[in-house]
Amino acid sequence: MAKNAFYAQSGGVTAVINASACGVIETARQHSDKIGKVYAGRNGIIGALTEDLIDTSKESDAAIAALRHTPSGAFGSCRFKLKSLEDNKREYERLIEVFKAHDIGYFFYNGGGDSADTCYKVSQLSEKMGYPVQAVHVPKTVDNDLPITDNCPGFGSVAKYIAVSTREASYDVRSMAKTSTKIFVIEVMGRHAGWIAAAGGLAADAENDIPVVILFPEVEFDQAKFFAEVKAKVDKYDYCSVVVSEGAHWPDGRFLAEQGTRDAFGHAQLGGAAPVVANMIKDELGYKFHWAVADYMQRAARHIASKTDVDQAYAMGKAGVEMALAGDNSIMPAIVRTSNNPYAWEVGKAPLSEVANVEKMMPAEFISENGFGITEACREYLVPLIQGEDYPPYENGMPKYVTLKNEGVPRKLDPFEL
Amino acid sequence: MAKNAFYAQSGGVTAVINASACGVIETARQHSDKIGKVYAGRNGIIGALTEDLIDTSKESDAAIAALRHTPSGAFGSCRFKLKSLEDNKREYERLIEVFKAHDIGYFFYNGGGDSADTCYKVSQLSEKMGYPVQAVHVPKTVDNDLPITDNCPGFGSVAKYIAVSTREASYDVRSMAKTSTKIFVIEVMGRHAGWIAAAGGLAADAENDIPVVILFPEVEFDQAKFFAEVKAKVDKYDYCSVVVSEGAHWPDGRFLAEQGTRDAFGHAQLGGAAPVVANMIKDELGYKFHWAVADYMQRAARHIASKTDVDQAYAMGKAGVEMALAGDNSIMPAIVRTSNNPYAWEVGKAPLSEVANVEKMMPAEFISENGFGITEACREYLVPLIQGEDYPPYENGMPKYVTLKNEGVPRKLDPFEL
Repeated sequence: MAKNAFYAQSGGVTAVINASACGVIETARQHSDKIGKVYAGRNGIIGALTEDLIDTSKESDAAIAALRHTPSGAFGSCRFKLKSLEDNKREYERLIEVFKAHDIGYFFYNGGGDSADTCYKVSQLSEKMGYPVQAVHVPKTVDNDLPITDNCPGFGSVAKYIAVSTREASYDVRSMAKTSTKIFVIEVMGRHAGWIAAAGGLAADAENDIPVVILFPEVEFDQAKFFAEVKAKVDKYDYCSVVVSEGAHWPDGRFLAEQGTRDAFGHAQLGGAAPVVANMIKDELGYKFHWAVADYMQRAARHIASKTDVDQAYAMGKAGVEMALAGDNSIMPAIVRTSNNPYAWEVGKAPLSEVANVEKMMPAEFISENGFGITEACREYLVPLIQGEDYPPYENGMPKYVTLKNEGVPRKLDPFEL
Repeated sequence: MAKNAFYAQSGGVTAVINASACGVIETARQHSDKIGKVYAGRNGIIGALTEDLIDTSKESDAAIAALRHTPSGAFGSCRFKLKSLEDNKREYERLIEVFKAHDIGYFFYNGGGDSADTCYKVSQLSEKMGYPVQAVHVPKTVDNDLPITDNCPGFGSVAKYIAVSTREASYDVRSMAKTSTKIFVIEVMGRHAGWIAAAGGLAADAENDIPVVILFPEVEFDQAKFFAEVKAKVDKYDYCSVVVSEGAHWPDGRFLAEQGTRDAFGHAQLGGAAPVVANMIKDELGYKFHWAVADYMQRAARHIASKTDVDQAYAMGKAGVEMALAGDNSIMPAIVRTSNNPYAWEVGKAPLSEVANVEKMMPAEFISENGFGITEACREYLVPLIQGEDYPPYENGMPKYVTLKNEGVPRKLDPFEL
């Protein structure tokens, strides 16, 4: 009899992680001879540990199809990393107990680096604990930091959002610069790697001569050099846009966002890197500023998702199921770039042992010599990833996203304390 | 011989103010027997005072048409309010000198409340200083605070952006709430009126049961009541979204965001209510939070503009020219709502004497009884304004916005010191 599958979403969600879920579930439904039901973990792996399973077979085909254009994690996500088998055998035994109780033979985990590690550990259950399960990691992370795969589903849409928003806001500040705002600062995600910050550089191109100064986490913050760069841009353009990564930091490692400035009332100023950067420019150069912090908006912005990203997210989910059906275990489908211009890609395969706990950094040659911009090589890498629009349907002026029923699977086991 | 026209953009720019410019210029071009060239003021009224005029006849029809889908102010804007005729006769004499030198008989000013006042003063030049000019104010403001007109071009698109972003981020935080973030705070514009904050309430509807708590500038901040409201939402939903207006303030009038700096008009410079609110929730209730500040992104977001808003912005520009051609002076075209369901509107006309320096506040019956939400009446008012999508063209994954040549008109006069 066909084994059931477990699917879960892990870590920070994205605009397209549900497109991967859609790819997994639709493909599984096409192979009902080999895969029974797809049970989703409510809130990621926690759903497996606590036997809190969602029966996705209760969802209509239309609802599952709508996942493709719905941002966020439809089944709930979690930040929870399994310890090693040696350190916490109890959790692995529980997983097997739940898998057995619900006849689960496939494990699809949709997440980033930490999740790949969890998936890798589950993939070892066959060998180390004698329970047959095929574990496939479906890549997802806005941080774009998974190894082997050319890029990560989720990143392209954030990149598009940041590129578009930076261009739009730059047009705005350019309009205001004569008598008002000269500096616009936007803070973006990416604590360890500057991939998302780099996307801000796409605001400018041959037809859009926009001054953009980027503060990367890869480059130690040099305040004097930064002031000189901003001043040079304002001298030339009368305005300047600054894209600051949340991970931008001083030479001593302190994040810019941690700077202990105080407001007019003597309270410690609460806030991120953007207000800190904006205020230091004002203090040194006197320019009036505006600042924005994109935060969750950037990774939830399904309304401006990259079509390439949506297609790849779906393809990774689909390929994950197909690989499992072909007998694979302990692998991750990956995106392989086969051509830059025109952009072409195909589905590859990465062993989880080479994915788990490896962080891909941005290559040094992607950052311009002065440390404040992107190179042509970086642009060549990024531009294909934001190609195409894939608008969700609208109703009454609002995007029509789906909220699933998420009906639980009846429990068969005793409760489990996390 | 046909008189030339002067057109300028004033105050904070929007996603659709260029659509109004498009309406003015395209309509003027259709009436070249009565209107000669359209000269745009570089950086608003400052362009008129300093004889810094842009010859829009040098722009192709295609470039002018592209203004319809380009955010920001294509000719530059300014924050500059003319004093009264009595207090600064010199500026008015200069305006007449420039108008005479360039044979300007039409004055189109595209802005909000302060600009309506400037336009009104210019409209009096005929009567008070004997120079024949027809002055028409083309309404624009994201703050939606002009009187008489049912709504202001620029507002609908910000409202759509905030409604969509709040919905998307709410889906995100809902996914994360089990083990991580439970509170998402988004800060929006609207110093005096809560129109934009109200739009955050549209994130929720019959099919999207999302807990949204709104902090309006119209409602004195009651911290204890706010904590109780947020706690009740989290108890029920496990998460909560908070939309805070930059104008939200304590009972003593202090803004939640107050930084102690002031802008060119002496208004307190805002930005930072979101981190303040997020941190106070954390301190009192212990919930993990994320916060975003939309700032310029919200009013520049042409990529998610409301079609209704774009259409109305264009129509106001067009109607302004048509009214001038019909002999009107000292007026503003206005949007008249003739039906709610289905939504229908037509172009009306408002005398500038009744527009200048009048601020339309949000009706008390638009705010729910507890002060943290919107009523059905408010929803009925808002929903039509965000109807329809009007996507810009894309190239290489990015919106293709136009930057005009903005060639100057040769100067004929001596320089003028502002």
